[in-house]
Amino acid sequence: MADPRLQPLPGFRDFAPQEYALREYLFRAWRSVARRYGFVEWEAPTVEPTELYLKKSGGELPTQLFRFKDQGERDISLRPELTASLGRIVSSCYLDYNKPLKWYEIGSCFRYEKPQKGRLREFVQFNADILGEAGTGADAELLALAIDCMRELGFTSKDFIVRVSDREVWLEYARQHDVPEPRVQDFLGVIDKLERTLPEESDKKLRELGLSRDSIMEFIAHPPTGISPRYESVLADLQARGLGDYVKLDLGVVRGLAYYTGLVFEIFDQGHNLRAVAGGGRYDRLISTLTDGSIDMPATGFAMGDAVIAHLIETCPTAKAQKDAALVPHVCDVCLALAAPEMRGQMLMLASTLRDAGVRVDLPLADVKLGKQLRHAERIGAQYAAIIGAEYPVIELKKMDTRESKRLLLEDIICELIPRKQ
Amino acid sequence: MADPRLQPLPGFRDFAPQEYALREYLFRAWRSVARRYGFVEWEAPTVEPTELYLKKSGGELPTQLFRFKDQGERDISLRPELTASLGRIVSSCYLDYNKPLKWYEIGSCFRYEKPQKGRLREFVQFNADILGEAGTGADAELLALAIDCMRELGFTSKDFIVRVSDREVWLEYARQHDVPEPRVQDFLGVIDKLERTLPEESDKKLRELGLSRDSIMEFIAHPPTGISPRYESVLADLQARGLGDYVKLDLGVVRGLAYYTGLVFEIFDQGHNLRAVAGGGRYDRLISTLTDGSIDMPATGFAMGDAVIAHLIETCPTAKAQKDAALVPHVCDVCLALAAPEMRGQMLMLASTLRDAGVRVDLPLADVKLGKQLRHAERIGAQYAAIIGAEYPVIELKKMDTRESKRLLLEDIICELIPRKQ
Repeated sequence: MADPRLQPLPGFRDFAPQEYALREYLFRAWRSVARRYGFVEWEAPTVEPTELYLKKSGGELPTQLFRFKDQGERDISLRPELTASLGRIVSSCYLDYNKPLKWYEIGSCFRYEKPQKGRLREFVQFNADILGEAGTGADAELLALAIDCMRELGFTSKDFIVRVSDREVWLEYARQHDVPEPRVQDFLGVIDKLERTLPEESDKKLRELGLSRDSIMEFIAHPPTGISPRYESVLADLQARGLGDYVKLDLGVVRGLAYYTGLVFEIFDQGHNLRAVAGGGRYDRLISTLTDGSIDMPATGFAMGDAVIAHLIETCPTAKAQKDAALVPHVCDVCLALAAPEMRGQMLMLASTLRDAGVRVDLPLADVKLGKQLRHAERIGAQYAAIIGAEYPVIELKKMDTRESKRLLLEDIICELIPRKQ
Repeated sequence: MADPRLQPLPGFRDFAPQEYALREYLFRAWRSVARRYGFVEWEAPTVEPTELYLKKSGGELPTQLFRFKDQGERDISLRPELTASLGRIVSSCYLDYNKPLKWYEIGSCFRYEKPQKGRLREFVQFNADILGEAGTGADAELLALAIDCMRELGFTSKDFIVRVSDREVWLEYARQHDVPEPRVQDFLGVIDKLERTLPEESDKKLRELGLSRDSIMEFIAHPPTGISPRYESVLADLQARGLGDYVKLDLGVVRGLAYYTGLVFEIFDQGHNLRAVAGGGRYDRLISTLTDGSIDMPATGFAMGDAVIAHLIETCPTAKAQKDAALVPHVCDVCLALAAPEMRGQMLMLASTLRDAGVRVDLPLADVKLGKQLRHAERIGAQYAAIIGAEYPVIELKKMDTRESKRLLLEDIICELIPRKQ
């Protein structure tokens, strides 16, 4: 079956309707929660000048870029993430919007990575950002939104945890331990990778900075009380919303990208079996960097990909049951069936009338035996079949689940089917 | 204001929320009509092997490809259109679906063209295709869908016309006039470009084939009665649906891509001032070509881009009025305002309760003067403001349009706001 010429490129995915349904389910959940939080949708170009990513992101992105020259010799890249585009767009039009901006986006990103479970070359991200508010009220609102996206998909505090950290704590730690200023980003990089690096290796790097892995691990395991006033403030806010159980302070989280400042966070499954489901944090200086200091706008945001969350849904019985129930196909409300070929015109007119009123209608496109038409109605999940035959304008309306049938006049069929859509 | 570093690449577009709203309006119309017709959504990768486009499309595409080598030395391209991917995907999974397949897609396509009005390097297309049905019933269903997409946007038969043609008529014409078999595609190409080529030039090319421009123009202006039985059949079908006024036979339409067979069509504004708003037709041999003959599946489809239709909306008063009315921002149902800072926790709890019930809620993220909070509520188009002050749990609920105010208990506020969402 798997003809290689019919496959997508490695790391890319086809979404035939059965696969698209899950994608649509995630999109619906993200949009629904974002709108409840008063966020508005935006979108960026799929392709941007490569410079936009080289300049500010730092970290791993540049090596993973889908980067190429266009026919006009421009150095361009498929977007690996949305924050750089967001910064660019907000900088060009922020005067048209009331602050704080609460913007969300859903779209494809691209990274040239080795394809594996949860890592794809094209994946979909949900991005949510609050711009123009420096206080922790914005961090808390964003965290609440992230938590509610998980709750909307059927996850509880037994299934996931938001690990919140504070980069300022580490910057203060570096200052107190005399880490030289130019080495601070390296220091943050070592902390970021502690969980996935051999202990000796991390320790060696930390000793070069005059530190030790043991003392860092101790600091993470038992952070001094009140070490992050920002976290305390966000926690109190989330507790007032009834969402306090979903977060914990975890200084082991740093986030790879260099542009983060202040509070950062990552969402993990409670078993910590998968990669981060979502991650984000403050990036108060990005817009200033992009505009060479002419616009100063504090910001905080996060992104959630579609691949890891899809894996997590499969491992969580309540989330999986909710998803399976939502994915039952209902392609149409009524499937018209033709028992007398000479009534095709009447059937087409009925289809138009119903569709104009918003009813989802399927109909036979060629002369097909009645039995086959009714099997089609069943397979596509139609709620009703309406059989148009020689007795027209009397029509047989059949409810597909109960198999109940009644004979109705054309105008009664219309009255029966249309109100359900209004 | 227009800092060049803050602009998108030439031919690419930023969609800040004010621009996104129009995009969303088009998407909603396309999705709504497609679902009424019983179509289901699918999506393809943004990037495909270049070979997929070189092999079958012919015509202009290859020179306009955004084509590059990835880090694994694969020759890949940003998709210029969706039909090649559709053919690939359907070939790999058609056994999982009941025929005929009625599939639609909405997504970005990319062409390296000189950017100008209505021509972009990244644009959005709505694609709809029916696969597995060779009869004209499928062509008519697809045309009806295309027409209803235009009607859904507020256009009438005074605003647009569907020019329907039949490639088989031209193939028969070529046979009767002894055009050599290998030159038939060239012949179709000349007909396709008649409207935008100098008469002498077309005539020269046609004379090389033993034909003349004058006789071709006469044939197009006065096609022999009944020359296309396919068109007659489709017209009768559309007339039965009440959609006969939207189409006319116009043999001047041929469509550029080599894979088309049988009926083809293009939608134009009645003044013919713009490029085609949409176009499509039968491509009965594409899937067979893709699978080296192992799968034979007749198909018909069309695509409608977002750029030309957006221009057309601006030129048509009823369509424009409908669009403007739909684009009024309603970012949230209720904007909470805080008159007593010590009540922040109570406000957050109320926000959570309302949001959990589906109400769209905005709230102040920092301590801001009450007047400024109410101005924010007005600017973002909130329907209500709810002012939480020292008298909590008594809350002032203000209707923003009438400025009417009433004081209600917390539970009554909740009862007042939640039912509107259910």
